[in-house]
Amino acid sequence: MKKTITVLPGDGIGLEVVKATTTVLDKVAELYGHEFEYKYADIGGTAIDKHEDPLPQETVDTCKSSDGVLLGAVGGPKWENHPSGLRPEQGLLGIRKALQLFANLRPVTGHESLTDASSLKKEVVDNVDLMILRELTGGIYFGRPQERRQVDGEEAALDTMIYKKSEIERIVRQGFEMAKLRRKKLTSVDKANVLESSRLWRETVEEIKSDYPDVKVEHMLVDNAAMQIIREPKQFDVMVTGNMFGDILSDAASMLTGSLGMLPSASIGEQAPGLYEPVHGSAPDIEGQNKANPLAMIASAAMMLKYSFKMTEEADALDKAVSDVLSAGHRTGDIAKEGETALSTDEMTEKVMEVL
Amino acid sequence: MKKTITVLPGDGIGLEVVKATTTVLDKVAELYGHEFEYKYADIGGTAIDKHEDPLPQETVDTCKSSDGVLLGAVGGPKWENHPSGLRPEQGLLGIRKALQLFANLRPVTGHESLTDASSLKKEVVDNVDLMILRELTGGIYFGRPQERRQVDGEEAALDTMIYKKSEIERIVRQGFEMAKLRRKKLTSVDKANVLESSRLWRETVEEIKSDYPDVKVEHMLVDNAAMQIIREPKQFDVMVTGNMFGDILSDAASMLTGSLGMLPSASIGEQAPGLYEPVHGSAPDIEGQNKANPLAMIASAAMMLKYSFKMTEEADALDKAVSDVLSAGHRTGDIAKEGETALSTDEMTEKVMEVL
Ligand SMILES: CC(C)[C@H](C(=O)O)[C@@H](O)C(=O)O
Ligand SMILES: CC(C)[C@H](C(=O)O)[C@@H](O)C(=O)O
Repeated sequence: MKKTITVLPGDGIGLEVVKATTTVLDKVAELYGHEFEYKYADIGGTAIDKHEDPLPQETVDTCKSSDGVLLGAVGGPKWENHPSGLRPEQGLLGIRKALQLFANLRPVTGHESLTDASSLKKEVVDNVDLMILRELTGGIYFGRPQERRQVDGEEAALDTMIYKKSEIERIVRQGFEMAKLRRKKLTSVDKANVLESSRLWRETVEEIKSDYPDVKVEHMLVDNAAMQIIREPKQFDVMVTGNMFGDILSDAASMLTGSLGMLPSASIGEQAPGLYEPVHGSAPDIEGQNKANPLAMIASAAMMLKYSFKMTEEADALDKAVSDVLSAGHRTGDIAKEGETALSTDEMTEKVMEVL
Repeated sequence: MKKTITVLPGDGIGLEVVKATTTVLDKVAELYGHEFEYKYADIGGTAIDKHEDPLPQETVDTCKSSDGVLLGAVGGPKWENHPSGLRPEQGLLGIRKALQLFANLRPVTGHESLTDASSLKKEVVDNVDLMILRELTGGIYFGRPQERRQVDGEEAALDTMIYKKSEIERIVRQGFEMAKLRRKKLTSVDKANVLESSRLWRETVEEIKSDYPDVKVEHMLVDNAAMQIIREPKQFDVMVTGNMFGDILSDAASMLTGSLGMLPSASIGEQAPGLYEPVHGSAPDIEGQNKANPLAMIASAAMMLKYSFKMTEEADALDKAVSDVLSAGHRTGDIAKEGETALSTDEMTEKVMEVL
């Protein structure tokens, strides 16, 4: 098959991890007789520098005309308090919205060989396998008004957390569908004892659940969920939640795997190409040093093969390659224990190619 | 000294843990020659049942006329979807607002003997000592509008996250003051890359910091904070944050100590009496079974002695008593390991009295 992939390296280690990933994808193409064509476009801080715009229209157009999008990472201290008032994150939020990628899938699976790198006890995280499904184009990230305002004669700032019923419905249905294919348990996370938007969220889940009689549903308050995810992560199968709660919970959950450098994500909509990005950020402190862990980006590409290209066999092979290099004891700096050799980005990439 | 204490048992195990605590306080009074007078008032679900109001005016008045307030817990399935539309939590949010308790102190200290009960590795949590300072009367908990609304011809629900500069200022100053008395590090947590209210928060911290040159300040995004608190909690001294982020982070942090049953909290304002409550909820599943862990409520009372009554020696003695019973290996069900005897609420209370 021939597929066009838009590559958005973004900022910081984004460049290095996408380079590693296209190299690996080329190998997949070669092995399985596909052809992947890459188109590069700017986003984030890099796009601010080049175009004074964190998300140039050209980038959106390029993404829309492709079969899948790979994104490295955006952001860095260089663009904090940028004179233009522009922020790299606007590029990320903008592309999610422009492609209407309302569903963000963040699988959290523990590689047994990595449990030493986790701050959690081995028995707590071994064989963890949960899926965080985060709503990605609504909630407080996009609600308006979002502004400064004078209140009682002084400066105030406000954000609006808003959800329409249909926005809740489509992500919750996706959650039920995923749970059906997995262990048939859906945990919906909200703060219904305080927030009106959460009460609508909970009501909507209650309405939909009769369509999925074989899925067990539970509601959990976000504060409790933040605790339970650390206390006993194996109780979860699929967790579905809003944009902001999903952001917080998925970062917390990353600690189950020992490193944020291990977590892939897929953002998908009803039709536009999906966008695949690691959960980790741009890590400006190690930028350009050939130290970044490319595995989350590579695993994100595996999700692209699976969800956007329906190349199940290829996706599984790539996932297995990642898992095998870990089992063989290969480590980048972020997951190496004292005394273990830390591989460079290039070396780790090479290992993945070897076992593919 | 003579002090008047308003006791709000609330719901579920609230009754049992406040009873345990007044018993212990009586012993403190006896030992140190004080007199504590208790006035009881209703709040939460119990108040809905008796007065059709989660926070009767009489309760507010009683609190205002006392030197300190002890609150057990509120909430339970009985009042979810109550026909009146009233919710127990409205009582809790209402009393915080009525007494203008803008600062919620949630100390997280690990008892070395309990690290086995934590899902985190021993070396990660041993000797953890951090203070979460949560803004308690503002943010998305109280912002208006908070309502249902028709948007694009369908139902929507919204909440407003709003902070005035003065609200941020007073809690942040409190954070600096606390850090000054501790290890001189303040971590301010926000989501400034997405939220306008967080950007005002961050600016305000930046403005105030020059008044506290001896305190090291850092800003951390809430998603990263949720991760760091699990990854390496000892990096933190004082964390200051908004109402909702504080709610989530402090529950996550409770896992460092092995049990939510261990964490006290103090809510204080500029003048009104402070309110002291455990971080744990009403645990309706074990209500009335004499199983609840009273230590978080007792430790909350120790905070009352310290902050509201300035009885430092008495507070230290009570804290030490809690610590000593743990070191002696006494455990309630929530913190007992397999094979260990689980004490009842009464027995645990008795142990605390013995060592006092
Ligand atoms: C960079 C930031 C805007 C983004 C978010 O909050 O969505 C990131 O934290 C993520 O989780 O992808
Ligand atoms: C019961 C609930 C409203 C409350 C809150 O969110 O503030 C509780 O979780 C807490 O942390 O005290």
